[in-house]
Amino acid sequence: MIRIGQHTFEFPERVYSELAPYLVHTPCMKGQYFDRTASADILFKCENFQKTGSFKFRGALYAVKQYVRRKKPSVVCTHSSGNFGGALARACFLEGVRCFVVVPENAPEVKKKAMSGYGAELQLCKPGTVHREKALMDYLKNQPEAVFIHPFNDPHVVEGHTTLITECFRDGYQPDCIVVPVGGGGLISGISLAASYYFPSTKVIGAEPENASDAFLSLQKGEIIHLNEVNTVADGLKTPLGPLTFDIIRQKVHRIFTVDEDEILLAQKEIMHRLKILCEPSSAVVWAAVKKNKHFFENKKILLLISGGNMDI
Amino acid sequence: MIRIGQHTFEFPERVYSELAPYLVHTPCMKGQYFDRTASADILFKCENFQKTGSFKFRGALYAVKQYVRRKKPSVVCTHSSGNFGGALARACFLEGVRCFVVVPENAPEVKKKAMSGYGAELQLCKPGTVHREKALMDYLKNQPEAVFIHPFNDPHVVEGHTTLITECFRDGYQPDCIVVPVGGGGLISGISLAASYYFPSTKVIGAEPENASDAFLSLQKGEIIHLNEVNTVADGLKTPLGPLTFDIIRQKVHRIFTVDEDEILLAQKEIMHRLKILCEPSSAVVWAAVKKNKHFFENKKILLLISGGNMDI
Repeated sequence: MIRIGQHTFEFPERVYSELAPYLVHTPCMKGQYFDRTASADILFKCENFQKTGSFKFRGALYAVKQYVRRKKPSVVCTHSSGNFGGALARACFLEGVRCFVVVPENAPEVKKKAMSGYGAELQLCKPGTVHREKALMDYLKNQPEAVFIHPFNDPHVVEGHTTLITECFRDGYQPDCIVVPVGGGGLISGISLAASYYFPSTKVIGAEPENASDAFLSLQKGEIIHLNEVNTVADGLKTPLGPLTFDIIRQKVHRIFTVDEDEILLAQKEIMHRLKILCEPSSAVVWAAVKKNKHFFENKKILLLISGGNMDI
Repeated sequence: MIRIGQHTFEFPERVYSELAPYLVHTPCMKGQYFDRTASADILFKCENFQKTGSFKFRGALYAVKQYVRRKKPSVVCTHSSGNFGGALARACFLEGVRCFVVVPENAPEVKKKAMSGYGAELQLCKPGTVHREKALMDYLKNQPEAVFIHPFNDPHVVEGHTTLITECFRDGYQPDCIVVPVGGGGLISGISLAASYYFPSTKVIGAEPENASDAFLSLQKGEIIHLNEVNTVADGLKTPLGPLTFDIIRQKVHRIFTVDEDEILLAQKEIMHRLKILCEPSSAVVWAAVKKNKHFFENKKILLLISGGNMDI
């Protein structure tokens, strides 16, 4: 097991060997334009091609597998702005358990449809973490036998996300930096964990919208910051950190860069136009961060996480 | 050499060995949704990931290489609704010759930008084959030393496109059917040529917009049909066949299916949504054709050509 503070985690290759048969080993893509613009060696890890269209499937499936094995629940539940809900719905479908998801009413239609497509039961709520958590607590009161899997603040979810870096390790790619979008911090936690295991000298760097820069502020203040007003096109990055992810990020993440809305939208357009892939605004923050901090990244080998490709077309 | 009627063509593996260092060996993608919907085994060959964002680069580069070697021109010219122009511009850039392209003024902005991005000189003209050819003839009168490379009715362009099927052959994938968009017929000619060489029992099938069904009608009538009014979202498929491509299609293509505008747009949305890739309407005709003719394709191994991913975002 790997220790970070008071938390212990499964070894990344063990997690990988359990999940690999169910995952897409996602490809990495390159584009001359990106290398030239950043004066760096840039590789995009394309989790838009992962099952359910985002990296979330890795963590969701690993967590469902662990809880089903241990607790044999009849129903698994969560709250999600979309991608985790879709991922959990598919994981539950594969493992043969029911799935219940609280979704903010303003989540993209395509994400809602994905969840119900895998047979999950949806309950809409008002936008905002408070409303999501409240609606889920109400559900759990009536369904005490349900197992709640938090979309990011869960050790098994974090463990599942380590498989991303195990794939890079198996591909023989060792980056100087890995740039990762930060929402609740589950992805960057899993990546930091695995990167410090496989590539101890690699820097893990977060990218976040200025309008949802709670992780940046949390690192600065040394405590979890909750923002009152969060309004960003990066709908997957609105959530604040959890205690678990904050602990990991504090110890393992080198720094966090923030980018504004125009920078996110331009970066999204460039990624889609140049790589010919669908890329959520929440994923585009990583390229925006590299462009904005050219001196920091110059001449480095950089892995950029395209975390998902679920968007209304 | 391979003979088709009065035409002779280079062996596909020879063409491939000359071009392979410059090409993306494009990946094939699968999606459960497509297999389930069509009750078939469906693989998408993703030429949206080819250099310049479409298959056209294969033919353009091979033709430029042959003409540069033989004629050493100072400038190469063509007319193009976009993708061939971009491909030729890049090929000329690589081979160090100037490039001139006549472009209809209604071509997508992204395609015009791609051409000028590679240093091609553009001249806008009114939409329609007649205007394109007229503008180019005027240019050639003043620049008699320029070499004109036709966007599809050129044996070397057709030879270049055979590399697509050589890649499938090397990947070990032998389909029962290959479904290909038909515009001027250069792509389907190259594919038919290579398919009849590697996979003699494989059926090559064209897909065409109802609103630009000149190839379908040409096969029926036994002569090249020019339509007066051509209005389709599939901007790459508006051109009529040329004498060379018509000859090859007549002898090698099993049949052509047509699809309407709504079917094209829905198919495009499904491809983008499910595969998370950009896909031009001109490429989406292939999936629309498979859905519309389910009985024909049922239980077969089908290769669908995603010919390009250049679209205004």
